[in-house]
Amino acid sequence: MAIDFTLAPEHEELRRKVRTFIQETVIPAADENASRDEYLRTIFGLREKAKAEGLWLPHMPKEWGGMGLGHVELAMVQAEAAKTRLGPWVLNCMAPDEGNMHTLLHWASDDQKERYLKPLLEGVQMSCFAMTEPEVAGSDPTLIQTKAVKDGDEWVINGHKWFISNARRANFAILIARTEDVPPGERGGNTAFLIDLPSDGWNDVREVETMHGSTGHSEIVITDLRVTDEQILGGRGNGHRLGQYRLGPARLAHCMRWISQAETALDMMVDRALNRYSHGSVLADKQGVQWLIADSAMELYQCKLMVLHAASKIDKGEDFRTEVSMAKHFVAQSLNRIVDRAVQVHGALGYSTDTPLAHMFQHARWARLADGADEIHQMRIAERTIDAYRSTGSTWAATGGLPL
Amino acid sequence: MAIDFTLAPEHEELRRKVRTFIQETVIPAADENASRDEYLRTIFGLREKAKAEGLWLPHMPKEWGGMGLGHVELAMVQAEAAKTRLGPWVLNCMAPDEGNMHTLLHWASDDQKERYLKPLLEGVQMSCFAMTEPEVAGSDPTLIQTKAVKDGDEWVINGHKWFISNARRANFAILIARTEDVPPGERGGNTAFLIDLPSDGWNDVREVETMHGSTGHSEIVITDLRVTDEQILGGRGNGHRLGQYRLGPARLAHCMRWISQAETALDMMVDRALNRYSHGSVLADKQGVQWLIADSAMELYQCKLMVLHAASKIDKGEDFRTEVSMAKHFVAQSLNRIVDRAVQVHGALGYSTDTPLAHMFQHARWARLADGADEIHQMRIAERTIDAYRSTGSTWAATGGLPL
Amino acid sequence: MAIDFTLAPEHEELRRKVRTFIQETVIPAADENASRDEYLRTIFGLREKAKAEGLWLPHMPKEWGGMGLGHVELAMVQAEAAKTRLGPWVLNCMAPDEGNMHTLLHWASDDQKERYLKPLLEGVQMSCFAMTEPEVAGSDPTLIQTKAVKDGDEWVINGHKWFISNARRANFAILIARTEDVPPGERGGNTAFLIDLPSDGWNDVREVETMHGSTGHSEIVITDLRVTDEQILGGRGNGHRLGQYRLGPARLAHCMRWISQAETALDMMVDRALNRYSHGSVLADKQGVQWLIADSAMELYQCKLMVLHAASKIDKGEDFRTEVSMAKHFVAQSLNRIVDRAVQVHGALGYSTDTPLAHMFQHARWARLADGADEIHQMRIAERTIDAYRSTGSTWAATGGLPL
Amino acid sequence: MAIDFTLAPEHEELRRKVRTFIQETVIPAADENASRDEYLRTIFGLREKAKAEGLWLPHMPKEWGGMGLGHVELAMVQAEAAKTRLGPWVLNCMAPDEGNMHTLLHWASDDQKERYLKPLLEGVQMSCFAMTEPEVAGSDPTLIQTKAVKDGDEWVINGHKWFISNARRANFAILIARTEDVPPGERGGNTAFLIDLPSDGWNDVREVETMHGSTGHSEIVITDLRVTDEQILGGRGNGHRLGQYRLGPARLAHCMRWISQAETALDMMVDRALNRYSHGSVLADKQGVQWLIADSAMELYQCKLMVLHAASKIDKGEDFRTEVSMAKHFVAQSLNRIVDRAVQVHGALGYSTDTPLAHMFQHARWARLADGADEIHQMRIAERTIDAYRSTGSTWAATGGLPL
Repeated sequence: MAIDFTLAPEHEELRRKVRTFIQETVIPAADENASRDEYLRTIFGLREKAKAEGLWLPHMPKEWGGMGLGHVELAMVQAEAAKTRLGPWVLNCMAPDEGNMHTLLHWASDDQKERYLKPLLEGVQMSCFAMTEPEVAGSDPTLIQTKAVKDGDEWVINGHKWFISNARRANFAILIARTEDVPPGERGGNTAFLIDLPSDGWNDVREVETMHGSTGHSEIVITDLRVTDEQILGGRGNGHRLGQYRLGPARLAHCMRWISQAETALDMMVDRALNRYSHGSVLADKQGVQWLIADSAMELYQCKLMVLHAASKIDKGEDFRTEVSMAKHFVAQSLNRIVDRAVQVHGALGYSTDTPLAHMFQHARWARLADGADEIHQMRIAERTIDAYRSTGSTWAATGGLPL
Repeated sequence: MAIDFTLAPEHEELRRKVRTFIQETVIPAADENASRDEYLRTIFGLREKAKAEGLWLPHMPKEWGGMGLGHVELAMVQAEAAKTRLGPWVLNCMAPDEGNMHTLLHWASDDQKERYLKPLLEGVQMSCFAMTEPEVAGSDPTLIQTKAVKDGDEWVINGHKWFISNARRANFAILIARTEDVPPGERGGNTAFLIDLPSDGWNDVREVETMHGSTGHSEIVITDLRVTDEQILGGRGNGHRLGQYRLGPARLAHCMRWISQAETALDMMVDRALNRYSHGSVLADKQGVQWLIADSAMELYQCKLMVLHAASKIDKGEDFRTEVSMAKHFVAQSLNRIVDRAVQVHGALGYSTDTPLAHMFQHARWARLADGADEIHQMRIAERTIDAYRSTGSTWAATGGLPL
Repeated sequence: MAIDFTLAPEHEELRRKVRTFIQETVIPAADENASRDEYLRTIFGLREKAKAEGLWLPHMPKEWGGMGLGHVELAMVQAEAAKTRLGPWVLNCMAPDEGNMHTLLHWASDDQKERYLKPLLEGVQMSCFAMTEPEVAGSDPTLIQTKAVKDGDEWVINGHKWFISNARRANFAILIARTEDVPPGERGGNTAFLIDLPSDGWNDVREVETMHGSTGHSEIVITDLRVTDEQILGGRGNGHRLGQYRLGPARLAHCMRWISQAETALDMMVDRALNRYSHGSVLADKQGVQWLIADSAMELYQCKLMVLHAASKIDKGEDFRTEVSMAKHFVAQSLNRIVDRAVQVHGALGYSTDTPLAHMFQHARWARLADGADEIHQMRIAERTIDAYRSTGSTWAATGGLPL
Repeated sequence: MAIDFTLAPEHEELRRKVRTFIQETVIPAADENASRDEYLRTIFGLREKAKAEGLWLPHMPKEWGGMGLGHVELAMVQAEAAKTRLGPWVLNCMAPDEGNMHTLLHWASDDQKERYLKPLLEGVQMSCFAMTEPEVAGSDPTLIQTKAVKDGDEWVINGHKWFISNARRANFAILIARTEDVPPGERGGNTAFLIDLPSDGWNDVREVETMHGSTGHSEIVITDLRVTDEQILGGRGNGHRLGQYRLGPARLAHCMRWISQAETALDMMVDRALNRYSHGSVLADKQGVQWLIADSAMELYQCKLMVLHAASKIDKGEDFRTEVSMAKHFVAQSLNRIVDRAVQVHGALGYSTDTPLAHMFQHARWARLADGADEIHQMRIAERTIDAYRSTGSTWAATGGLPL
């Protein structure tokens, strides 16, 4: 029991196994020009191979068919898997299903687990999480306007959601709606419901077009959708707590995948710098380009340390909210900066789609908005730093609670 | 053997002991207005108490009278000690003696250890390290112009040094001079000499006045100073390697102390934000001020993670140069930013010397120049990132070699 | 003759006229979902109205059918026109034709003006400028590899170009090729040729796909393309000088249009901040969001001052290269920052294409690479600052040569 | 009447005259090591020469013995004068007297002008401005706690001020005190008083020690100081308006002097870069150092444009508050950045006081706090940008109201 930054030998072994599988089996099967349907077919084909290798559900306990890893080990698996966008899909640990599995495991009744969690784990169903609304700030769930009103034995739900990832492929949604009349700013007004899809009253009106194209974020209009009490997940009035519970590890899983993307961008930046000649030398010999490389390496290093530490806090059952907020904020920012520098070092080529950087750039921007915009995490970090100072006379507890 | 960020219980115990000693014994004895002589007398008084508590030479092995700590544990002791500038002096682990002790332990002959190391360890002598020259870039030791020329059995040394910290209190200097005729850019031209002080030919012409006053950085003119082979430390031609060996852990020890300063600044920033009212609310309620706090907390957190990781690499006997360069660069930058923000949040009060922040601001600027300017570390980090990519096809090894 | 920042009354009048025309005639005719062909038809329809209003060729002298404006007045017209992407097309002052017209006016023989410039001015032809090559850094034209070799009376040209904007719509190209054997780094090796399109040997192999889709940047493979001396533009060996001559005002024209985009983004940012409620107040009341607004306003203000000053130097016949480099660098950077902040303030909505911000974000990234990447302009600015100091003992001449 | 960035010939002539006077007469007379008294004697000696040259009171109208310049021309004189700290003192246009003269000219009664303004203009008296208080935010004058209470014919004043520059040399103070009972946040509660110094009840308890030493910012405790109605300046309840009136041009005058300092720092940075060799080349040849130079040149260029434009708005009698806020904010920030980069390029030498950079660094920090901290100006700029948008549907008027 003392500071250590290395994996146990069996986990190092696992890491090599995941890397080999991704490099030798998954990446060769990827086809950038595949249609969305072909893409899914490829995934389902590869999943059988993944299961055969024991690389399935890295984020789930063994008794539920998973790999039984802690979050630290999970970080390593997610990062290796995310070297290609296909990776997390093949291992069945992609957003939003991964977060939904965690949520169901913790909050669902036995019946609900049987009906909703099992098929996700088996990879025969998919799901979505419907919280964000266009009219109100997603970062402030006390503002949610979708309403569920009791009508006899049933709840009648009306509302408007968007950026609901994966909705068109989902067999069910976890939907957050307002059920209680609490004052604005107060928690306890929301409840989570399990909605079978398709359902009367659940209208998927379009896929929202974004900066990186139309990749499955739906806008949903909910009109007189009816469900019973049995569809409540986690108890009435617990919608906010459930959402927060879900988001913690889900944010960290995002970070793990983003780190992988950032590493790819840094590798490309260095490769280009070694091979591009201009004004008397290759770029790698120029002081300014070296600064871009050094700053990127340093930030990526920090990202990795932060994610490992936050994961270790989750594994220990300690309060990890500040650490996850810091990681989410910083990794998202770093990803954007590192990809941006890689684009710049590539010049016009980086702006073209001849390298993956252009698409990485477009995707990266989303990271600064998803699962809590930059500003929300800054607010939370500040609040906890202030609280730490107020209660102990020192900010120490808000900077990781580390032995330093 | 798996990732862990906590200290062993006996080290947690030690930490509390150091903190208590600093808070209850050292800080109350400090007097901001003391003269330099009084200041030294206070230190020597407190050292007896430190020895009695077993808080002496935290960076030295037990067989040399030290506390026998690894660098990770040392980080924690240095950080606690540096809550006051007196702390490292009282524990006898202040720069430059701390680095000089390491150097002597590793490079000195038994006779030299007896004559130079022992009195340092006992706290009855002090020392300085004379490498930097005004005419050439300190970051490029192949440029050193101070020359030692063999004349019979003796070496005759001529040259010009400056920013030699502690020179006026030192009983001896470790002096780097050019002894071999190697081409510029190549290493192997320098040798380290042990110079007893005072010595004929060693002329301390002034204390260089700086942004934070005149606190003991001397300018030295060396004229026909004569020494014998016995005064060579670490072998002829090894001056560059010796300097690099010395600087690694010494830089990290700086970081440990700077982290302590940065934490004090953050504590003060939060305190002020909670107590200053302006334009309708206390500062702590304003989004922008929260950003200053959040960014500072995040950076301080990163500093701590980096120092712990670099220390752990030293303890494991692994190559730590990239990690120490990153820590040195980032901690120095963060210290400057955090103190600067604290000054800003304090307004005119922060600019006055009514709080310690003004002096901290003036001292902090030195951190970006000492032991390798920002730009030198960026160059080294870039070089190693490029090397990692060139030799392995991935930059992974240059971002900490972490399991992610 | 003294410092003044206002337009003459007749130009203020003109400004209102352009604004009214753009707002009331051009913008209502735009259709975001139009095909590229429909889009062109719309433009040609509106051009007749523009000519009728006297809003045609703002950048050309009156004797060539233009509006006879100085660059300062042109800045104002370009900025007003660029409130919609259609605007510059309707006024026939869009890139790359605008720069090509300038180039032909200055460098072409009378015959060439008749044959190439006239149809551009009349709006019955279009053109492209073919300099950039994929294999070498565009910022260093001494590296150009496309070669023209004399074969009897003809030149035989072979080479590879890309990012040739507008190539598929162009009736002719201005092509830069190497004709002389000068050492690398030296100028004088390149010559400009006028190439009728289509031409044997000019192969438009694809439109390069980019971050903002495929909008007309072609990749061209040139194989044994044959032209005569008559097709040389501006004299043999003058290709580099011609390119530099062209780029100065063309870069500034870009800045004028980018300023217009940045103003739109700032307007949207403020509008959103006034209307979005979160965590207890509208965003406009939060200190941090105010910082985003204030910094954007300040940067946009600086952009405007810089462009006006650089334009005024062009109008006075003074050396404007440093000022244009500074404007190009800073306006491109500011555009990216301001649009990025506007996206962030809009949250998920900003990432969607429901507002124009997402497309503006994707387009803006190009500005930091086009017509000299950020780093090239920084190099040029530094060189001129150093030269100023070296020749006068002061950097004053490199900071605008202003009366301050 | 059209955009122009040049001075009239007679003002160019004047500029040369000021420069010559400063370079040839003032700078040779400066002695860094002079005591404060000697320093003052030097100033008074030089003032006679300045008067003889007609270089006296550049900021005052001719009828009051000044040079009758507009603010644009004043900018140029202030910048030339501030090449040495002595300059503004010699021309009698230094803070705070310069601002106080403006204030008295505008707000004082004829009697007050005779008694207070005249001796300032003649250079036989000095003054101070007493507004800032330690207990409340200086940026929010509605919070001022110093109180003046009517007692018969007299006002009895009690309060606490600090950072009152020049107080110990002043023959009178302009003192802001609360006279009316208005709600917090509302203006109209303050009144300005003219206080003869020394006075019973005005206790100068110390000079506040700061980051750049103790250079004349006093802390004042006011106890039962008694004055009559005749000592009111500008009318009862007008204290806030008077303070704001004073600050506008005073802030701009600061900017003019700071620009001069920044230019000196940039000159030094370039000089050092040309002469310092490290790792294979002089610094000026390294891309990263070139970025530091280029960014500094660009910022200084922007500073100059902003100050000229704001000065031109003052001269035209237009609302200049946004422009002055932008200039104050940006010039202060740029000064700090440019001096910081110059220090870094100088390495240890920059940290020493062997060059003026160390003192410039310590002084520069004050610029970000004086006359409105950074954050106050950002708030004001944001407010005016939002107001512009709200009232016109465009932010255009808040970015300089320029013809672009």
